[in-house]
Amino acid sequence: MSTKYAPAQRVANQKQDVWSIINEAAAASPVQPIVNMGQGFFGYNPPQFILDAAKSALDRVECNQYSPTKGRPRLKKAIADAYTPFFGRKLDPETEVTITTGANEGMLSAFMAFIEPGDEVIIFEPFFDQYISNIEMPGGVIRYVPMHPPADGAERTSSAANWTIDFDELEKAFNDKTKMIVLNSPHNPVGKVLSKEELTRIGELCLKYKVIILSDEVYDRLYYVPFTRMATLSPELAQTTLTVGSAGKNFYATGWRVGYLIGPPNLIKYVAAAHTRICYSSVSPLQEAAAIGFEQADKVGFWNAAVKEMKGKMDRFCQVFDELNIPYSIPEGGYFVLANLSKVKLPDGYDFPDHLKDRPRDFKMAWFIIVELGVAAIPPSEFYTDERAHLAEDWMRFAVCKNDDVLEHAKERLRGLKKYMQS
Amino acid sequence: MSTKYAPAQRVANQKQDVWSIINEAAAASPVQPIVNMGQGFFGYNPPQFILDAAKSALDRVECNQYSPTKGRPRLKKAIADAYTPFFGRKLDPETEVTITTGANEGMLSAFMAFIEPGDEVIIFEPFFDQYISNIEMPGGVIRYVPMHPPADGAERTSSAANWTIDFDELEKAFNDKTKMIVLNSPHNPVGKVLSKEELTRIGELCLKYKVIILSDEVYDRLYYVPFTRMATLSPELAQTTLTVGSAGKNFYATGWRVGYLIGPPNLIKYVAAAHTRICYSSVSPLQEAAAIGFEQADKVGFWNAAVKEMKGKMDRFCQVFDELNIPYSIPEGGYFVLANLSKVKLPDGYDFPDHLKDRPRDFKMAWFIIVELGVAAIPPSEFYTDERAHLAEDWMRFAVCKNDDVLEHAKERLRGLKKYMQS
Repeated sequence: MSTKYAPAQRVANQKQDVWSIINEAAAASPVQPIVNMGQGFFGYNPPQFILDAAKSALDRVECNQYSPTKGRPRLKKAIADAYTPFFGRKLDPETEVTITTGANEGMLSAFMAFIEPGDEVIIFEPFFDQYISNIEMPGGVIRYVPMHPPADGAERTSSAANWTIDFDELEKAFNDKTKMIVLNSPHNPVGKVLSKEELTRIGELCLKYKVIILSDEVYDRLYYVPFTRMATLSPELAQTTLTVGSAGKNFYATGWRVGYLIGPPNLIKYVAAAHTRICYSSVSPLQEAAAIGFEQADKVGFWNAAVKEMKGKMDRFCQVFDELNIPYSIPEGGYFVLANLSKVKLPDGYDFPDHLKDRPRDFKMAWFIIVELGVAAIPPSEFYTDERAHLAEDWMRFAVCKNDDVLEHAKERLRGLKKYMQS
Repeated sequence: MSTKYAPAQRVANQKQDVWSIINEAAAASPVQPIVNMGQGFFGYNPPQFILDAAKSALDRVECNQYSPTKGRPRLKKAIADAYTPFFGRKLDPETEVTITTGANEGMLSAFMAFIEPGDEVIIFEPFFDQYISNIEMPGGVIRYVPMHPPADGAERTSSAANWTIDFDELEKAFNDKTKMIVLNSPHNPVGKVLSKEELTRIGELCLKYKVIILSDEVYDRLYYVPFTRMATLSPELAQTTLTVGSAGKNFYATGWRVGYLIGPPNLIKYVAAAHTRICYSSVSPLQEAAAIGFEQADKVGFWNAAVKEMKGKMDRFCQVFDELNIPYSIPEGGYFVLANLSKVKLPDGYDFPDHLKDRPRDFKMAWFIIVELGVAAIPPSEFYTDERAHLAEDWMRFAVCKNDDVLEHAKERLRGLKKYMQS
């Protein structure tokens, strides 16, 4: 066809993504069905009181029609009320909260709101892959700063806190063109919760260079060590930080697409304006259900139960790595765990598909584990630039937000790694 | 604050939009509550079988988690099956259908998929206002072509077919930089259904200039004259046309945010890629409900009932214009009607707010009708460029997708126009 029908550059180069590689491996595996520890969706339903709220909303005419573009007033109020204690000041639901179509479109809205072509955005590696296209869409230029894996990550298990930031390296990434920085805590895939000290040092740099902080805190209800929010460190940082949250992550409903941003009015209003231009408004009945979720979660003890349950799953699953003497980073938050598989040897001459030959070792390992053992996990070098992919090539990401029987099934299969390990 | 915290140009200039003006007028009106004939949301619920489907979906774990980015297989299949008879060939659900977060984000995805900065897009005036920002976001340049109101629109009622395209004017808008054209049939706000002859002439121009056709057909189940789909006119046009649909419009659920695009694989794949980068995936339980909607609608006679019901509402409402001798364009489709209020005289020296003083007459008229009569409607010059806003200044858009008692209430109030009309 004529090049006049050609796609724009931003979508033309479609490198095969990790999800389609995983699916291809799953189809090629003799072990069926695959136990899916890959994508971070929940293997169980939202709590009944939230499902009931969604069903009730479906019976109400106004809950099936357009919501205001900034979100349903009830949801904005519920979020403002729920976060007011954390922020230590009364949040205004009308000016300091805006609803988006999932946290993902919320991040895109923030980039669309502030990034002009050529503006720079700092992100840490490993990164959530959607950040990249979301920053590039408005013409942003990305500056990558690595989180450094623990030096002894191949030898021993230790806290995810041991993935560290080199602050000299970080400061070098700032310049006059730096418009935004993206933080993610609790972190996917590392499981690290940025400490108050780390946040303070990052915050100082951001204030010095007058940089907007986009703090992706979608796992903000799942932390196993003290959790500090960037926006709460100082009045100055409160004025320059956008906090991103996700009702889908909070309430076990990744398919609901209800996200939100909290921040000062002079930032939030532009995020809302961008969101209006992207999605117009977000899904109404599930916004209503999320509102009821935020209103009632504390009363019914949901948040505490959620932490306890997820920590239990994490401990249950990681037991297999302890057993196999496979080191891992003990998550401080979230539902992902990175295990270090350097001790697992890929058999010489193993038949990998051609398109994996130029990929880092973790891609081959992921393929191997799916095909040989029937367990899907995600190679974390997907979340690195090519230049730094080697930092992750011994690691593998597992999502533990699954039913306990699934976790046990995965463990049973992963015990099969033993025969590929040097003794 | 430092300009380093300033918003991007694309969101910085927020002209007060029509919706906030309408809300301000509603708040200022002594007649309360306002009868809202403005925004095109339904005043009643989706049919029970679809609500039941949504509730059932909420009980299923996989229906609350991420859907595939291109949409749930069941929904894609249901849409392919539902549209195969219209398209006269078997549609492939995997390659020729993709799901988006409402038709709005579907249109944005199409522009993001094909528009490079400087590429031109032709749209007709009046236009759906979101088109503008959606085209400008990837850097597109808009070429506007007017639909001409009927010359005797101020004197007599006639079919919306009498809003016409000047084909010489249209052809002048095409050039080597023209990448896409946006069609909308049935048309919001005009109510025109593009005739087969008109579509054929547009199609010839598009093929001549190798232009991708984005055909917004979200009102495709509500037409009162024969409806032709651009994509069905010839194999060549099928290869170059993207058809946009909306489960929200089809099933009376504008707040569900489930849209879809149908088109050839080599166009659809890039729309899907752009959608992935914008929203990642769309709302799962309501996709499932929409799938069941498409599977069952024909069997339960929903589509025919929907047309009959909406036509009944249109006739019921327009009766008040007949009674008052106010001319209008008889809609050929959709749920909007444009009435010509040139006979209604705004009282000399009426006290309009300052920000309306530079707006066309229809903005003042909309304010006046809300404040004096308590009926909200939309001034259609909002859907024109400043240069051509005068074409619409005598018209007013009313949405009839409301309960019959609301329509009767609106009619009763609109009878109050009589005292402002010249006899």
